[in-house]
Amino acid sequence: MSATLVEHFGVAVRQLREQRGWSQEELAEHSQLNRSYVGEVERGRAIASIVTAYKLSRALEINLAGLLSHCERIEQQRVARGIELAAIAS
Amino acid sequence: MSATLVEHFGVAVRQLREQRGWSQEELAEHSQLNRSYVGEVERGRAIASIVTAYKLSRALEINLAGLLSHCERIEQQRVARGIELAAIAS
Repeated sequence: MSATLVEHFGVAVRQLREQRGWSQEELAEHSQLNRSYVGEVERGRAIASIVTAYKLSRALEINLAGLLSHCERIEQQRVARGIELAAIAS
Repeated sequence: MSATLVEHFGVAVRQLREQRGWSQEELAEHSQLNRSYVGEVERGRAIASIVTAYKLSRALEINLAGLLSHCERIEQQRVARGIELAAIAS
């Protein structure tokens, strides 16, 4: 699940960024992170530290716990969808 | 503030560990992390990744958002205490 946490964190960041209508460049600028690093985080290729997560949360005007809780909700939705698909397939 | 976030995260982990009456060894074992690394995280010397934070949160039977929210509360308390001390000093 740790590998998927990294993926879900990326999805959460992308969703919150898109809700603001921001490009990756804009998010990178607001969070004082490198643009290509933000792209890696969104694609689940880079494992964010809690400091990176904090910078992203501030840029997205959400608290750190809120960002992680959004990430946990995405995970729960995906698990639920997986169970549904398994039920349909069986 | 990012530097103090790392410190407050360490304090949050130590507090939650002590609430369970666990040693660092026990937390390390439950979270499948190295004991000395857990010590570094608690002392704010190592910056945890979201995966490390997740492993610690599972071991402590709290969700990831809950752990980070505990960390943010510690920060707010310290900021409030700083303001009080400044008011007494002025």
